[in-house]
Amino acid sequence: MRSAPFTALGTFAHTPKRGHLEIIEHGLVHVDASGIISDVIRPDQPRYQAVREQAATSGQLIEGGPGSLFLPGMVDLHIHAPQWPQLGQALHLPLDRWLNEYTFPLEARYLDPALARAVYPQLVQTLLANGTTTGVYFSSIHQEASEVLAKTCLDAGQRAFVGRVVMDDPSHCPDDYRDASARTGLDGTLDFITFVRAMTGNESALVQPMVTPRFIPSCTDQALEGLGNMAGDQQCRVQTHCSEGDWQHQFVIDRFGHSDTYMLREFGLLRPGSVLAHANFLSGPDMQTIAQEKAGIAHCPLSNAYLANSVFPLRQALDLGLRVGLGTDIAGGPSPSLFENCRYAISSSRMLEDGVDPARSAEERGRAGSRIDFMEAYWLATAGGAQVLDIPVGRFEPGCCFDALLVDPSGPHSNIHCHPGISDTAKALFQKVLYHLTRSDIRKVWVDGVVVLNQDR
Amino acid sequence: MRSAPFTALGTFAHTPKRGHLEIIEHGLVHVDASGIISDVIRPDQPRYQAVREQAATSGQLIEGGPGSLFLPGMVDLHIHAPQWPQLGQALHLPLDRWLNEYTFPLEARYLDPALARAVYPQLVQTLLANGTTTGVYFSSIHQEASEVLAKTCLDAGQRAFVGRVVMDDPSHCPDDYRDASARTGLDGTLDFITFVRAMTGNESALVQPMVTPRFIPSCTDQALEGLGNMAGDQQCRVQTHCSEGDWQHQFVIDRFGHSDTYMLREFGLLRPGSVLAHANFLSGPDMQTIAQEKAGIAHCPLSNAYLANSVFPLRQALDLGLRVGLGTDIAGGPSPSLFENCRYAISSSRMLEDGVDPARSAEERGRAGSRIDFMEAYWLATAGGAQVLDIPVGRFEPGCCFDALLVDPSGPHSNIHCHPGISDTAKALFQKVLYHLTRSDIRKVWVDGVVVLNQDR
Repeated sequence: MRSAPFTALGTFAHTPKRGHLEIIEHGLVHVDASGIISDVIRPDQPRYQAVREQAATSGQLIEGGPGSLFLPGMVDLHIHAPQWPQLGQALHLPLDRWLNEYTFPLEARYLDPALARAVYPQLVQTLLANGTTTGVYFSSIHQEASEVLAKTCLDAGQRAFVGRVVMDDPSHCPDDYRDASARTGLDGTLDFITFVRAMTGNESALVQPMVTPRFIPSCTDQALEGLGNMAGDQQCRVQTHCSEGDWQHQFVIDRFGHSDTYMLREFGLLRPGSVLAHANFLSGPDMQTIAQEKAGIAHCPLSNAYLANSVFPLRQALDLGLRVGLGTDIAGGPSPSLFENCRYAISSSRMLEDGVDPARSAEERGRAGSRIDFMEAYWLATAGGAQVLDIPVGRFEPGCCFDALLVDPSGPHSNIHCHPGISDTAKALFQKVLYHLTRSDIRKVWVDGVVVLNQDR
Repeated sequence: MRSAPFTALGTFAHTPKRGHLEIIEHGLVHVDASGIISDVIRPDQPRYQAVREQAATSGQLIEGGPGSLFLPGMVDLHIHAPQWPQLGQALHLPLDRWLNEYTFPLEARYLDPALARAVYPQLVQTLLANGTTTGVYFSSIHQEASEVLAKTCLDAGQRAFVGRVVMDDPSHCPDDYRDASARTGLDGTLDFITFVRAMTGNESALVQPMVTPRFIPSCTDQALEGLGNMAGDQQCRVQTHCSEGDWQHQFVIDRFGHSDTYMLREFGLLRPGSVLAHANFLSGPDMQTIAQEKAGIAHCPLSNAYLANSVFPLRQALDLGLRVGLGTDIAGGPSPSLFENCRYAISSSRMLEDGVDPARSAEERGRAGSRIDFMEAYWLATAGGAQVLDIPVGRFEPGCCFDALLVDPSGPHSNIHCHPGISDTAKALFQKVLYHLTRSDIRKVWVDGVVVLNQDR
């Protein structure tokens, strides 16, 4: 038991099914002592008044307040934790310079766990403050720094999936930042899995380990095969990059004669709960393979604009039944906000639909029927991400964990304004929240029914 | 004299030339009683100490404080003021439904000036709070509501260019929202120009009128010709839309056998200071015409993703010597922040460069060499926009108006975090501000040396 049971009263908005927005005004959501939603009661239900009165009498009623909105918390499927200090820096440089002059040297510095202790609490608090209740993290290759990250998430109360990165191929990793051998990477991963599962306070598995080959180009066959076996033996989720840009996609084809997707399956890395970051260059058969294996995609629209040479064909993937959620790809994507990534998911999908180059004809320019709307974007960031990980969050339904945000635009820094008779419905408010929310609009954040961020004014 | 003279002390960052970031640490910027920068003094200049001490002694020293940054205020070249209440709404609908079900009916409601009085102060305050010190506004076709908008900008102290919209073609305007005749539109425009120039308190022309045909498709030849003549007679700047999407661009070619640009020149509407919104589908000769006439472009990258079927070929335009600045295109663009539009200008330029559809080869996909960087984006939003309007703002240089922001990321809602030894230089801070600023990071805003927004904590 981690918290006292309570009943939340207010306007609840969620997207339990893709493309479907449900708004419950004056709703009651009862959360039990283990943080699970045990009841959702609408005002037209017979027991509504009795439940509301009983919660008020027993001091267990939490009211959202006028003009506020309860939303499911966001699931960020792809975060490079050690890159946090360089967020927004040097993205105008070519990829190889960004990686070799900034990213790898920075990640290498986490050999000193003091840097992890200085950086990771700020990262995790910033993500919580921006509404991310579940984070999927790449750490670095370092044991102690990776442990600091897992411990930081646990201490902050954030639901998290954390991987100690493996990268051992000398021909494609910097000399000062790689695993000394495949063995080192494999042993380190097993140690890290053991550590996370045994952390004091982690009995409910709020924080879980992940098998994390950086991507195929940075790993030897031996490491990839060993990690695939370990994922099966340990029943541990996998995260890695997949067919991100022209270079990455072609590299694997040149090395193996097959795509990333094909080879990840060969190595045993394509499993239920596997999170494949980006995946822009999937073929149709790749998509079918991923759907069959019940793996999922971390779509990172903001990062893709900088580093993936294209827009992920999201509509096609969804139509083929792929599981897809959103990721920030910090720091390849220069925003810690999944709300901002929702906005980019929408605008990117429209740019894919219409194309970009006005010098080409409309027919040559885009890919018809590619757009997603605001309801699909929010679904991706919540229930969609939860589906990728197969965890019961992202919806206000009995049996789901109460991972939630209270959004309140009444503060002095809000860009969210509703107007009487024009945009004052709960649906209008939801759209305004999606398009205009900044972190100052988020008043409270819960994970597993526990308040993990409180900005009551 | 509108304010007491003062000297600002702190870190000043600006982009006086395109692509060039200048940072002056511990700089002194002296502002005279008319709000003009009269001196910029760097610490290595001999008179630095004396000026600093004198300002301190006389109580005229304003200190930015550690970790803060003075920036030139943003110039938003394209805002539809009456659309403010629907910001973020209904953008998933097709353009014709967005216009006919939401936008035109909303604009028509400003026949009642009470709506203008309720909406416009909130709009102008929101823009100032987001760092926009100069706004270029489309109003509606209504005289009184347009006057309310001009007066609101003046009262709030925002530098503004405001146009009473003309749209008189019955075949392309709604019955309940159009000028009764070309004459009505022309007379209304002249009345509005006269009103704005005569407003009490507007002796320094902080607020200026603009001739504003909505766009060629909504105007008769008579209205367009009359407005072109009036712009010349009255020496009044012009704003309109130009070659925005496939439909709009082709419409004018079908009607006249020529492009928007060509016809705007024919009608006398292409003049120095003319602001052409969007302009995605300009031909090479169109670009040369616009450059020759010293007109400029309001590039609206966020709106373009929704409504323009393409990305404006910014790099090509800049290389040809066009004047270009940024616009939010509220509410076609669902953000009131030019910082967010800077981010979209960068990411859009990269999507144009790399293309979007991964099913096409890299060669077929994009337009090489299209990217802009963060320094060019900030230039567009400040000095670039100022160049379009030919006004002395957007730079910290003697002779420029002190239109400025004090950015201070030390508040509780900031996503801007610098890290010792990794990202703690002023240049790193500038990049982080550009990528992560939200309005809560803006502590103070000046226009013409006058504090128009103050969030001192």
